[in-house]
Amino acid sequence: MEQLQKIMIEEAQVLGNSIIKADSFLNHQLNVKLFNQMGQAFRDYFQTPIDKIVTCEASGIGLACIVAQYFDCNVVFAKKENSSLMVEDYYTEKVFSYTKQKESLFRVDKRFIHPGERILIIDDFLANGEALNGMISIVEQAKATVVGIGIAIEKGFQDGGERIRAHGYDLKSLVIVDRIENNELVFREDVVTNV
Amino acid sequence: MEQLQKIMIEEAQVLGNSIIKADSFLNHQLNVKLFNQMGQAFRDYFQTPIDKIVTCEASGIGLACIVAQYFDCNVVFAKKENSSLMVEDYYTEKVFSYTKQKESLFRVDKRFIHPGERILIIDDFLANGEALNGMISIVEQAKATVVGIGIAIEKGFQDGGERIRAHGYDLKSLVIVDRIENNELVFREDVVTNV
Repeated sequence: MEQLQKIMIEEAQVLGNSIIKADSFLNHQLNVKLFNQMGQAFRDYFQTPIDKIVTCEASGIGLACIVAQYFDCNVVFAKKENSSLMVEDYYTEKVFSYTKQKESLFRVDKRFIHPGERILIIDDFLANGEALNGMISIVEQAKATVVGIGIAIEKGFQDGGERIRAHGYDLKSLVIVDRIENNELVFREDVVTNV
Repeated sequence: MEQLQKIMIEEAQVLGNSIIKADSFLNHQLNVKLFNQMGQAFRDYFQTPIDKIVTCEASGIGLACIVAQYFDCNVVFAKKENSSLMVEDYYTEKVFSYTKQKESLFRVDKRFIHPGERILIIDDFLANGEALNGMISIVEQAKATVVGIGIAIEKGFQDGGERIRAHGYDLKSLVIVDRIENNELVFREDVVTNV
């Protein structure tokens, strides 16, 4: 997706050979116009009915809400923390975050994903796929169907995307970064021409 | 705001005499159509230019992004956790959460709020006002101006709203719950007729 690549070239910061900071547009400051372009790109790709979008807190939530407008559906986000308000039954899955170097528990209230629902999973980044596997597990525990997975930025040099595609999921990443070379992002070209 | 009151009567759960669970539409499952109606209501009330919306993770983010579309601006959300990606300078403020019974540190990268910017703060709930005070402090540390504060549900029986209005902030809550009586929500009527 050209607009996303453009803003990544202009604004993303690269740290070392694996960290891509997208916090000026994707996961701290949120570029809502760009999110709408991403929503349209996902709608163009996933031309199928969607009952609900599933994401996880925190940085996936804003994108998921904007994308939901293009599929005319609601969003459910997996929570990561305990809270005194959470007393019902939840679908849960342990997820290890490499960024934060800690394990957290994803939890979704059983009332909010129903058997047979057609689910689109949305998230900002895909690297090792830990968070994504956690969300897939929760959707499948609920006996709902993962119809598609929409990711803003996939790190193609980590193996999360490859493994998830190998399992047969329809995973669409708007941008895939193949590698980082001399502090610059090298994009996978076939993704650009697709969108 | 009538649509929000209606969905609260139908879907919100009341626990004891102070807890209102809005997780089927506001802070776990997110009703994106309702969020758009709320965005329009905030736009109708705050008829002034806004440079940026500030909110805090996690449950304010989705609403803030939808509302931002009505003000043609971006969103910045205060982060609550440490992360290995966060190395720059931040505006920070300690915030105590009564719901979670713990203190957290709100942090916003100094690059994302600029002196003189006109800021609208958006959040889902207002009770004691701890989170809101944290966001106001961060905006004012940045020498930006809190032009308005938009809240979905204010618990009128807790004193956050009263104190913030007493400081002269233009605080608009779409629904104010005056009290909980026999497990039922009693709304402040003047708020209904205003919107």
